[in-house]
Amino acid sequence: KQLKNITILPGDGIGPEVIAQAEKSIQAIAYRYNHDFSLDYAFIGAHAIEETGSPFPEETLRKCRKADAILLGAIGDPKYDEKFESDLRPEQGLLALRKQLQLYANIRPIKVYDNLTHLSPLKEKRIKNVNFVIYRELTGGIYYGKKGRYENGKIAYDHCVYSESEIKRIAILAFEAAMDRRKKLCLVDKANVLETSRLWRSVVKEVAKKYPDVETSFLYIDNAAMQMMNSPAQFDIILTTNLFGDILSDEASIIPGSLGLLPSASIGRNSCLFEPVHGSFPQAAGKDIANPMGAILSVAMMFRHFEMEQEALEVERAVDLCMKEGIMTKDLEVEVHYSCSQLGDLIYSII
Amino acid sequence: KQLKNITILPGDGIGPEVIAQAEKSIQAIAYRYNHDFSLDYAFIGAHAIEETGSPFPEETLRKCRKADAILLGAIGDPKYDEKFESDLRPEQGLLALRKQLQLYANIRPIKVYDNLTHLSPLKEKRIKNVNFVIYRELTGGIYYGKKGRYENGKIAYDHCVYSESEIKRIAILAFEAAMDRRKKLCLVDKANVLETSRLWRSVVKEVAKKYPDVETSFLYIDNAAMQMMNSPAQFDIILTTNLFGDILSDEASIIPGSLGLLPSASIGRNSCLFEPVHGSFPQAAGKDIANPMGAILSVAMMFRHFEMEQEALEVERAVDLCMKEGIMTKDLEVEVHYSCSQLGDLIYSII
Ligand SMILES: CC(C)[C@H](C(=O)O)[C@@H](O)C(=O)O
Ligand SMILES: CC(C)[C@H](C(=O)O)[C@@H](O)C(=O)O
Repeated sequence: KQLKNITILPGDGIGPEVIAQAEKSIQAIAYRYNHDFSLDYAFIGAHAIEETGSPFPEETLRKCRKADAILLGAIGDPKYDEKFESDLRPEQGLLALRKQLQLYANIRPIKVYDNLTHLSPLKEKRIKNVNFVIYRELTGGIYYGKKGRYENGKIAYDHCVYSESEIKRIAILAFEAAMDRRKKLCLVDKANVLETSRLWRSVVKEVAKKYPDVETSFLYIDNAAMQMMNSPAQFDIILTTNLFGDILSDEASIIPGSLGLLPSASIGRNSCLFEPVHGSFPQAAGKDIANPMGAILSVAMMFRHFEMEQEALEVERAVDLCMKEGIMTKDLEVEVHYSCSQLGDLIYSII
Repeated sequence: KQLKNITILPGDGIGPEVIAQAEKSIQAIAYRYNHDFSLDYAFIGAHAIEETGSPFPEETLRKCRKADAILLGAIGDPKYDEKFESDLRPEQGLLALRKQLQLYANIRPIKVYDNLTHLSPLKEKRIKNVNFVIYRELTGGIYYGKKGRYENGKIAYDHCVYSESEIKRIAILAFEAAMDRRKKLCLVDKANVLETSRLWRSVVKEVAKKYPDVETSFLYIDNAAMQMMNSPAQFDIILTTNLFGDILSDEASIIPGSLGLLPSASIGRNSCLFEPVHGSFPQAAGKDIANPMGAILSVAMMFRHFEMEQEALEVERAVDLCMKEGIMTKDLEVEVHYSCSQLGDLIYSII
């Protein structure tokens, strides 16, 4: 019996509520498969600022470092919205977490549920068979380059920097993933304008040689932003930079018709983090109406990362069953809806 | 009788064909309103590389500088697609043109034609009443910052730089445009991560004070990429940076269901350029099947810029009439379609 240490960062807004449901799935699997999961809790985001004065306290970093996996709820509080001068913003916690644990690959699967297609802004026939995964670089690029001002603050700059090794490590992950899927990989860049994109292209072409079975293609980000809406079913694995990935993965998240169902994983060499794609959604906090499926499916991604494939499938099947039966939270616009905690309980009992 | 000098850059692929139709509209208006337009021609893009060895020859620059307006077809040839090392690429011509003439604002109106909504990937009800204009900064940001390599080419960088004055001049244009429309302006940036975005936000807030009637809002680019698909009708004027504008305006262009109908203007202090949004579409070149409406509507934008409002409306009405009657090119998937030159002739005779 193997012990897995999971550090839980409930975070802000609806974070703690959806995480509570995700924990129920962890317990159900532990019980059913006789696994041993040890859960430990830590602060992050606005909640952490209030409790400790820092959006990413030392103790949280320590607890994350020793964990086999981190489960995050959501980060963000409107109270800090326009406080750009300050380092004390919830998002700083997220950016510090990614950097310090070197979570270099953010992975977002996009799949469509047949009985939710009416919620998608895209026409039904366009989103048929959509099933792709975005690999977004998460610890480099313009997010982490030097930034500042000169000439009395009248000129601002942000430096975008990428190294061969930063590109290579995520490219390898993405090609490996393609091998397990439909063997298609598309690099999204802006190589007709950016030098960093030209480096991305040459490194990816180099890595591609080791994966002759993978059909590799290239799209400029402007074209990709169009294609993703025009014919999203063409994609299998999308590989891209931090900034382009931020944009594309949010754009992609409208395809299934609901943010609430989307899980994500962020992978580093020694750490990995799982979190729903949706934000802290403060308007819904404390009302037991949030959709816990994104968090629950993030738990499935965590099990898969633990190489507990059976357990991952179990969780995914339970979610699929609810979706098929129309057992959903209010955000999915069903006539009879269930609360966040009811869904968590139901998934628990299905497993 | 006032003389207007127009420099015509037919460019590559379908460029020359659609420009030939646009010229017919110019002639029709000249005749009907007794205007005097003097047309002069120059090379740009792949065509210019072949003829002169440069994608943006000195003579073209000279002819553009002395023109009252520039009309561009399209730029790009697949032959240069992966030649990123070379400065001899067609796009370099476009980037040089923008920079040298200081065409700092790219303006793209997005409107939906009622009888084309079936072509949009978005559901009909989502695109009802869509009518917005994107103001994209066109001569600054990461496009034109320092770029290069170090450590033997293993590290690449691109610098993004913006100054107060660069932001202010396009912000004023955008607010002025908002005053003539529904008085809503949304700045799209990434102020939670980028210093340049924070400068954008503060300059735009400053300019906004002079326009108290305009409702000003702010969206992060990732959120904007979602909102644009989820509820595009919410937008009136979108103001954004060079890179975000490149992405957003291409994404927006899928809303009407066809790139072929979209015009654009690029405005500088002393120069202005008009061009269809579509590319050089080499597969269609020489077949007389390209859609000339984007080029023709660019001519309407040119007339409006000349303060020939009546003339602009005349051209737009002729296009609207064709659209209503289903008189369209093949790309719009109509059963009976017309050729590029037939449409040009028809618009000529309607005017
Ligand atoms: C909150 C913000 C800094 C963050 C990002 O841009 O990476 C978010 O949009 C995300 O995608 O996780
Ligand atoms: C060809 C390319 C350099 C150009 C750009 O990125 O600006 C194009 O995409 C555009 O939008 O006009």
